[in-house]
Amino acid sequence: MGERITVNASVREQHSHGEGSGLIGMPDLVAFAETTEEVSKLVALAHARHLPVVAFGTGTSLEGHVSAIEGGLTIDLSRMDRILEVNPEDMDCRIEAGVVRSKLNEYLRDQGLFMPIDPGADASIGGMCATRASGTNAVRYGTIRDNVLGLTVVMADGRVIKTGGRVRKSATGYDLTRLFIGSEGTLGIITEIQLKLHGIPEAISGATCQFESMAAAVQTVIEVMQAGIPIARIELLDESQMEACIAYSKLTGFEVLPSLFFEFHGTQAGVREQAEVAESIALDNGGRAFAWATDPEERNKLWKARHDAYWAARAMRPTYGAFVTDTIVPVSKLTEAVLGVKAAIVDAGLLAPMVGHVGDGNFHTVILVPPEDGGQERAWTLDRKIVEIGLSLGGSCSGEHGVGRGKRDFLVREHGEETIEVMRMVKAALDPSGILNPGKLLPDRVGQN
Amino acid sequence: MGERITVNASVREQHSHGEGSGLIGMPDLVAFAETTEEVSKLVALAHARHLPVVAFGTGTSLEGHVSAIEGGLTIDLSRMDRILEVNPEDMDCRIEAGVVRSKLNEYLRDQGLFMPIDPGADASIGGMCATRASGTNAVRYGTIRDNVLGLTVVMADGRVIKTGGRVRKSATGYDLTRLFIGSEGTLGIITEIQLKLHGIPEAISGATCQFESMAAAVQTVIEVMQAGIPIARIELLDESQMEACIAYSKLTGFEVLPSLFFEFHGTQAGVREQAEVAESIALDNGGRAFAWATDPEERNKLWKARHDAYWAARAMRPTYGAFVTDTIVPVSKLTEAVLGVKAAIVDAGLLAPMVGHVGDGNFHTVILVPPEDGGQERAWTLDRKIVEIGLSLGGSCSGEHGVGRGKRDFLVREHGEETIEVMRMVKAALDPSGILNPGKLLPDRVGQN
Repeated sequence: MGERITVNASVREQHSHGEGSGLIGMPDLVAFAETTEEVSKLVALAHARHLPVVAFGTGTSLEGHVSAIEGGLTIDLSRMDRILEVNPEDMDCRIEAGVVRSKLNEYLRDQGLFMPIDPGADASIGGMCATRASGTNAVRYGTIRDNVLGLTVVMADGRVIKTGGRVRKSATGYDLTRLFIGSEGTLGIITEIQLKLHGIPEAISGATCQFESMAAAVQTVIEVMQAGIPIARIELLDESQMEACIAYSKLTGFEVLPSLFFEFHGTQAGVREQAEVAESIALDNGGRAFAWATDPEERNKLWKARHDAYWAARAMRPTYGAFVTDTIVPVSKLTEAVLGVKAAIVDAGLLAPMVGHVGDGNFHTVILVPPEDGGQERAWTLDRKIVEIGLSLGGSCSGEHGVGRGKRDFLVREHGEETIEVMRMVKAALDPSGILNPGKLLPDRVGQN
Repeated sequence: MGERITVNASVREQHSHGEGSGLIGMPDLVAFAETTEEVSKLVALAHARHLPVVAFGTGTSLEGHVSAIEGGLTIDLSRMDRILEVNPEDMDCRIEAGVVRSKLNEYLRDQGLFMPIDPGADASIGGMCATRASGTNAVRYGTIRDNVLGLTVVMADGRVIKTGGRVRKSATGYDLTRLFIGSEGTLGIITEIQLKLHGIPEAISGATCQFESMAAAVQTVIEVMQAGIPIARIELLDESQMEACIAYSKLTGFEVLPSLFFEFHGTQAGVREQAEVAESIALDNGGRAFAWATDPEERNKLWKARHDAYWAARAMRPTYGAFVTDTIVPVSKLTEAVLGVKAAIVDAGLLAPMVGHVGDGNFHTVILVPPEDGGQERAWTLDRKIVEIGLSLGGSCSGEHGVGRGKRDFLVREHGEETIEVMRMVKAALDPSGILNPGKLLPDRVGQN
């Protein structure tokens, strides 16, 4: 592979961490693979030498997934960015793992198709599969899990397998596709993806509504979901996040109040009907002026502001650090969860804007970390408290960011020791030497370090 | 367990086979479990004695899944039929594995909710999970795979684990839920299910349309799907199946022609809009009178006829046997597949009405088996030919009936030896003694019997 495999210190440093986590782990080597066959050969070599292997896409994961904490070989897949096949009539495509979502959607636009999963970052789709990513559209289109038909995967010994296929459903054999999705590079390295696509809707409309209280905004979300409106996006921003977004994204016409951003997809008539039902629910809950945004430019500005929420929050305190929590609860528990988290933020005396894909019950807080002694500790304590609130309400410690290194300690509490033990059995079967992304996802057994 | 565990010959005989497959395998013992704990104890005992264990729901599977071909213990779960919890605000419920779908939907109706997955039989929902079932609604609501949030599973050594949870999505750990769905009792025994539910739509309307040719009917399906209509059901019946249904279900107003049955779910306006688009596509493809069926009674009669298609086909030749094939292809290959299958049926000189969930590319043929010497052989040859047509078009050998014993031989052809080997690694990890439903799903390695 010549210069595509390197021990260069700055390349290794670039590959030593993702975003949002302080965890640094320098790989000994970084290889820029261009084909599945290259990945296969690299992994086979690493396997023979018991060398740890970490797969790296865009490095935008948030829980330390890509840090090479035991050194070894990091395989960068970003050059595997070919769109191999698009089948408009079946609304599917086959791509290499390094294709980023913006590139795919630009490529598809002329054919009237799109791939809806939109985590904040312009992540690689291989990385999105590995972390079971979702985003603002998941309430309508599902997560990446629901949108993958099949995978090509390099196993721990370098063998290459194909899972799934092109058909929309199948009842033939174990669902290896779903087993690799969310396995965070610990069971195999995804190199190609067969993806479901969706038609760009005939009509899209947006709306916003502001509320006096978080409780009223959350109640609106619950009722909109229960009304069975096939809403495409329903996002909640608390007053603190709105303050940040108004300043950072220069939003006009908004007050510093809890706000909902809506998006409706469908036919012209369908979209109007959906928005009318949502409007009436919002107004019944004391929502202020329900503002329609049918103009694409205005809508794009709103969603750009939503996607920039993290940067807007950080801009409130430029000298502070930040990390993003990720909790999900059943929708019926959302009010309790959100109000509990707000109280915990106040108790902690920290600034932590909230924003969330609340149609799924999923929400984030951007904890701004004071640059003083003990600041990191206080932020971390608040993060654990927020996860604890979610779990105590029957939730999960991560709706979409994944486990990586950051959430390992919550897994037994969420799933139970027996279930984690079954996951360990699967890991041991598929990666007996433990070379694939060691120290991630599965917690160590009690008594291990 | 007293009388709930038995060696009674007629009970064993009832548990020696499913439907639609000639495969008989008598268990040595049948136990009627009433709790997860009982299943756990039974499996632990069987594990200690290396006794095969087969889980049995309603016995309506079609590929020999429940035949105890190595004897041992069959655990009948039909008495585990409690609906444990319904959460209308989150649209989910928790049930025991033996609950049948008609019972669940009757229970839910007053709350405006339903569970959409509808295989022809009134199957147990545990069995539906084990076989990754779907049905006529899957084109809109997904298969059972997409509608399960979590499971309780008894593992091969009797340990009980819980997978998933109540949240709509999660990114924490391996997707064991999906691993057990479709594993056909070979990795664990599902005893409880946390299910997603759906709101009963505000409006439902149906329609039928008849065509001069299968090609025109299939082209209509392809165009309807490509138009992005969120159709709830779109079923194709060939002229032979229509002849059977007209006679058996006393349908009036139909000719013996290829026909599509449609169903639309949504708001009043949405349903009308969907049906109008579908009508225009059908008429453009030479469809005859597009007949609307908004009257619930008329619509129910149609769908009852559709669900009775198997019995209608059998009634055409009461002295014949029958077996149902199950093939799925990408929707763009549907015309080629259907016409290829029709030609193969003619070549074989057999009567084999076709019917299918063609919105997914999934279709069945009911091969009527002549009661003469060699009849079974001819039917079996046709079945293999039909699967071959599907696989050669990038399809799967089963869209929804599963593998069991009947489709094992196609698995390597469909997935490749390396992929099947990874499935075997998972099986060996979770059931090292091979006691769970032995001889099913995974093909033997070459050289094994």
